[in-house]
Amino acid sequence: MKRSVMNIWVPLLLLAAAISIVLPAKTLAAEDPLPSWNDTAPKEAIVAFVESVTKRDSPTFVPVTERIAVFDNDGTLWSEQPMYFQAFFAFDRVKALAAHHPEWKEKNPFKAVLENDMKALAATGEKGAVEVLMATHAGVTTEEFEGAVREWLATAKHPRFNRPFTDVIFQPMLELLVYLRGNGFKTFIVSGGGIEFMRPWTEEVYGIPPEQVIGSSIKTRFELREGRPVLVRLPEVDFIDDGPGKPIGIDSHIGRRPIAAFGNSDGDLQMLQYTAAGKGLHFCLYVHHTDADREWAYDRRSPIGRLDKGLDEAQAKGWTVVDMKKDWKEIYPK
Amino acid sequence: MKRSVMNIWVPLLLLAAAISIVLPAKTLAAEDPLPSWNDTAPKEAIVAFVESVTKRDSPTFVPVTERIAVFDNDGTLWSEQPMYFQAFFAFDRVKALAAHHPEWKEKNPFKAVLENDMKALAATGEKGAVEVLMATHAGVTTEEFEGAVREWLATAKHPRFNRPFTDVIFQPMLELLVYLRGNGFKTFIVSGGGIEFMRPWTEEVYGIPPEQVIGSSIKTRFELREGRPVLVRLPEVDFIDDGPGKPIGIDSHIGRRPIAAFGNSDGDLQMLQYTAAGKGLHFCLYVHHTDADREWAYDRRSPIGRLDKGLDEAQAKGWTVVDMKKDWKEIYPK
Repeated sequence: MKRSVMNIWVPLLLLAAAISIVLPAKTLAAEDPLPSWNDTAPKEAIVAFVESVTKRDSPTFVPVTERIAVFDNDGTLWSEQPMYFQAFFAFDRVKALAAHHPEWKEKNPFKAVLENDMKALAATGEKGAVEVLMATHAGVTTEEFEGAVREWLATAKHPRFNRPFTDVIFQPMLELLVYLRGNGFKTFIVSGGGIEFMRPWTEEVYGIPPEQVIGSSIKTRFELREGRPVLVRLPEVDFIDDGPGKPIGIDSHIGRRPIAAFGNSDGDLQMLQYTAAGKGLHFCLYVHHTDADREWAYDRRSPIGRLDKGLDEAQAKGWTVVDMKKDWKEIYPK
Repeated sequence: MKRSVMNIWVPLLLLAAAISIVLPAKTLAAEDPLPSWNDTAPKEAIVAFVESVTKRDSPTFVPVTERIAVFDNDGTLWSEQPMYFQAFFAFDRVKALAAHHPEWKEKNPFKAVLENDMKALAATGEKGAVEVLMATHAGVTTEEFEGAVREWLATAKHPRFNRPFTDVIFQPMLELLVYLRGNGFKTFIVSGGGIEFMRPWTEEVYGIPPEQVIGSSIKTRFELREGRPVLVRLPEVDFIDDGPGKPIGIDSHIGRRPIAAFGNSDGDLQMLQYTAAGKGLHFCLYVHHTDADREWAYDRRSPIGRLDKGLDEAQAKGWTVVDMKKDWKEIYPK
């Protein structure tokens, strides 16, 4: 479980060591907790916030137990283009399971997926999407599903970058997670994505353990199979952790209001509003995708990760907005 | 928040100091992590288990991140007689809210509660119980409900012991929680009781933060009230965290299988079975209420906290069973 965290840390440590040799000690560059962030307003705002809630003599000091930070996943911690990564998983799983379902060759939405016909798939609408989701996510035990996710991640590659999906994550956000945890924050994921799709890898990739991952879910049933208790995943939606669902998921899983929230789309707006309405100091940040060369550029009109109302509210309320192109030195880990 | 934890620790530290003065150093009595447990089989089994999973060179070593321990609450961490403590809260809240509901004087189940007529209340059956529950637990924001719980706890007294309900907790289990956490365990509550009824006080009383409390819940709705986001508690059951619901709640909130589980009733059986079915070493314990003088004695026929199938399965599988009368030196904190 520790290997990927090492992969992040080893280059950082080497970099830090190299800098400390090259530069005079006084610059303290080696101690920069956010080296992939340019020295622009967002980085300054983050550091100022963290110092205000952690310094003992600060009037806005927050005790460690209340330092809760919540992060959206798709588009905030990793990319979400050309489509949500979980959709790649679902389509690959349709193909992997097709041998057991000869009827899928002739039956939409599965036929469309097997033929990579996205137009025909889109024509099946939400009903088709739910059918694909349930066929690929339900009908197995929680342990079998975890195995399927792990297996897929070990071989699948992102089509544009030709690297594993768990490498298409934002280096500046990894540094931010480490920085917050180093300052006593408990970091949580609050994602519209499937909770059991994320949990097998978030600890290794983000340092966030399964019990700090909140997401959308389907129902499960407790069963004794040959005397051994298992949980079977049912083709029935349990909870949608998106939009107004995010504060509800936070209340259900965390039971207290976060003091920092990070998102990138209108689906995160209620989570940021809920965080902003806390009694003490709070911090809300939107990642704005502005970098078509290194990542993608999209906002008000994007079907995926639309940022429209959220962008207006961020401006009106003075929330921090990261301009990916201007504010991030690096996008992905090297 | 720290005051009650201090209340637990100060006498323990004083006791430890006193013992270390009185006894020769070699007995190491001051280091006993479970001083309220007699030196009988359950204590030995607990210590042996903890050592087997924490010693680096142990063949059954478990990494810190996987040291998950789950505890039932009613009857396991605190008493549950003469009725669940949450029922006292509900009845007191009916009385507190009665001024706003003049019609309750004439209308069961409320009339029965207001007149302390438990027989008439019982006659209203499950329908009556749900009515009382929803009238006292829904219709307010999550923050208002938390306030109501705190206010009640500050004044309500247990009828037999005439002390606050949060003092009718088991001293040996407090020591066990501290001992496990000191050995890298993350401790969770998994209770049939209401999640939002427990969270306002579990951190102070048990050292278990709200995000590590799992319980039964009603649905909530996100609303903007005069621009301020709140969650409103709805009169609709969301999840029943009892029996087969416990492994489901564990999967939903924790996302991995515990290695240690503690309960006292048949409602905990599936949680213990689920824990016992893990791949590595595990530990399952039942608290058997056998002490009518100091607490209560009940098991196979009790309507509250029935322990029947669980007792048989514990014997068949060699799980640890605490005989409260024999195994516990103290029941409640002094």
